[in-house]
Amino acid sequence: MALIVQKFGGTSVGTSERIQSVADKVQGFREQGHDIVVVVSAMSGETNRLVALAQSMQAEPSPREMDVLLSTGEQVTMALLSMALIERGCPAVSYTGSQVAIVTDDVHTKARITHIGTERILNDLRHGRVVVVAGFQGRDEQGNITTLGRGGSDTTAVALAAALKADECQIYTDVDGVYTTDPRVVQDARRLDRITFEEMLEMASQGSKVLQLRAVEFAGKYNVNLRVLHTFQDGPGTLITLDEGSAMESPVVSGIAFNRDEAKLTIKGVPDVPGVATRILGPISKASIEVDMIVQNAAEDNTADFTFTVHRNDYRRAVAVVEQIVADLDARGYEGDTKIAKVSIVGVGMRSHVGVANQMFEALAEEGINIQIISTSEIKVAVVIAEKYLELAVRALHTVFELDREPIDDEGV
Amino acid sequence: MALIVQKFGGTSVGTSERIQSVADKVQGFREQGHDIVVVVSAMSGETNRLVALAQSMQAEPSPREMDVLLSTGEQVTMALLSMALIERGCPAVSYTGSQVAIVTDDVHTKARITHIGTERILNDLRHGRVVVVAGFQGRDEQGNITTLGRGGSDTTAVALAAALKADECQIYTDVDGVYTTDPRVVQDARRLDRITFEEMLEMASQGSKVLQLRAVEFAGKYNVNLRVLHTFQDGPGTLITLDEGSAMESPVVSGIAFNRDEAKLTIKGVPDVPGVATRILGPISKASIEVDMIVQNAAEDNTADFTFTVHRNDYRRAVAVVEQIVADLDARGYEGDTKIAKVSIVGVGMRSHVGVANQMFEALAEEGINIQIISTSEIKVAVVIAEKYLELAVRALHTVFELDREPIDDEGV
Repeated sequence: MALIVQKFGGTSVGTSERIQSVADKVQGFREQGHDIVVVVSAMSGETNRLVALAQSMQAEPSPREMDVLLSTGEQVTMALLSMALIERGCPAVSYTGSQVAIVTDDVHTKARITHIGTERILNDLRHGRVVVVAGFQGRDEQGNITTLGRGGSDTTAVALAAALKADECQIYTDVDGVYTTDPRVVQDARRLDRITFEEMLEMASQGSKVLQLRAVEFAGKYNVNLRVLHTFQDGPGTLITLDEGSAMESPVVSGIAFNRDEAKLTIKGVPDVPGVATRILGPISKASIEVDMIVQNAAEDNTADFTFTVHRNDYRRAVAVVEQIVADLDARGYEGDTKIAKVSIVGVGMRSHVGVANQMFEALAEEGINIQIISTSEIKVAVVIAEKYLELAVRALHTVFELDREPIDDEGV
Repeated sequence: MALIVQKFGGTSVGTSERIQSVADKVQGFREQGHDIVVVVSAMSGETNRLVALAQSMQAEPSPREMDVLLSTGEQVTMALLSMALIERGCPAVSYTGSQVAIVTDDVHTKARITHIGTERILNDLRHGRVVVVAGFQGRDEQGNITTLGRGGSDTTAVALAAALKADECQIYTDVDGVYTTDPRVVQDARRLDRITFEEMLEMASQGSKVLQLRAVEFAGKYNVNLRVLHTFQDGPGTLITLDEGSAMESPVVSGIAFNRDEAKLTIKGVPDVPGVATRILGPISKASIEVDMIVQNAAEDNTADFTFTVHRNDYRRAVAVVEQIVADLDARGYEGDTKIAKVSIVGVGMRSHVGVANQMFEALAEEGINIQIISTSEIKVAVVIAEKYLELAVRALHTVFELDREPIDDEGV
């Protein structure tokens, strides 16, 4: 007898048949005696259809009207799912973000939730109804429709779970949980029963795409038990939860994340004087280009090499800015490389174990893989290597940190 | 410098290109200095698509959820039209029925408007914005989404025009106005510059489909100047307005309406005693079958023949009820006829002219057309005839009442 918020994404509700399956699933939970709030996305393909319509009207559609338009996507799904539930004899009622009310700021197309009304939902739950809520959308203080941007439905689910003090927030996806690393790269990759918010955040920010960063942050902040599950396969999924201080028993490294999304730029022979970093990163940031890793190496001649990575999509624009910087700073020149990859080991266990980074570097060296950039946090070590070594590196690290072995106490923590 | 409410139906906004054309039209009015509120329907085809989705969930979809679903149709159109206007440099903002607020009762799928908030719209107009409002929808007192049923967008437009005290409510359609009769039947049919609410109501209820009955009633009640125009052809259309007491100058008959939608049933030899009409119409009405015309003829043997018409779609069901009634009343039997048509002459001028009905009967007799049922109101005479004579009858009446001739004072009234 728990209060559960369940979120089903666009693929899970992509066809009439799938909505029917979701209804079966929801009804099953309800028959176990649980109170259920369901958050739905637009049916897959619907958002693209609407965006195409918008672009046939306006090259850059008005953000306010775009939100009005896109918010219809979830509204269709929520009505259909409610009908499917009612057809099964399961009382259900659907609400838009405005109706709930999910109140946001007024930044259209990427609004942030400021407040959630719970009275209406709690009243329906008391009356035995399943409440179906449109994900991704809300309204501002003036009643204008807003949307939360990418991954917004995950955020809606987590925020609702927090506001309703739900026992669990279940995110249904097309994977059956969070893995030690991508199973397409490492065959022995293992589903994790648990992972901490911090680890999940690092995994997500390093390229593991299971959950949106913002939803995980939100869940961590409000201590919402978050579970990732497969929509159409039964299984326990992965519970994302607080670090309960059991790091002593936990494995040192919980997972390996990687991505091929970045490109590297090195400005060579810049004057090694205070303020030079700003004179390089200022113009880059002004061009709305986000920088991930940054390294500066001083040389003996009072010059330095300055290296940073950007998203590959921004590479061309970044090169144009860098050419100007080289001229302005009278630097020796620049080099660019788009054939890089980032590999990260993540784990709260690192906090209490020394030498983890070194163990990583050794493993890569043994495979003859050169490390180009290193970046560390308390629970993560990330390295940039040549893209061609990516799979080799991930497999080697997966073995070295024994991620293929079931930890003895994992299930029981 | 007027305040104009303009309504564009599903065909007028059926494609991106058409929405662009509507935007051109609206912008043109705004450039003339008018304040414009636009009411839009769902793009043609969209409602059918949504209904099909609903029926794939539930054989008889939940009315509340159906309203949630269908209301997305207009929401899509209103966002797209706003974008198209903004793209033309014309400030625009769109609102759902809930946002306006168009408050209705809670009868889902056929709600009635109880109140309209105007503050928000008036504020936008003051700021020089075109306001685009979703037709067909509102919300009940509890904030649940409702829809107004068939022709609801016309009603929204008229209700908004009344609430805003607009100078005119323009209904854009695929015809360029109200005609003396259907131009497909009578080549000389003439567009009317003006028609009164009462005439329009009779025309509509007798089968002329230009406007929804409810919208005309509403316009009459609140004295909203209603104009019917063609979306994609320029022209003055037809103004539907109050009877300004100019009937003396007006033509006697303004138009001829007709339909082939009805079927006739006669119960023969029922006992001619008080209460027999109720014993016949009671069971018919209980079966939710609507009866239009009713005639009872007493015979000499203390029995009577009882005749009534129903919609052809209800004919089979009506026959089943009638068979039971014949048995219950011990009547002599029944006859049915689906090959009938109804022809009506309509005009406020009838009030001050005697003998109009007789003129009609004479004209039909001259063509050898037998009249089966007659029904009259203050400004209408309707007759049922054999369906095969329909065109002949309409043409004869159109000539007899000189509807092909432009009235001298029509334009200037």
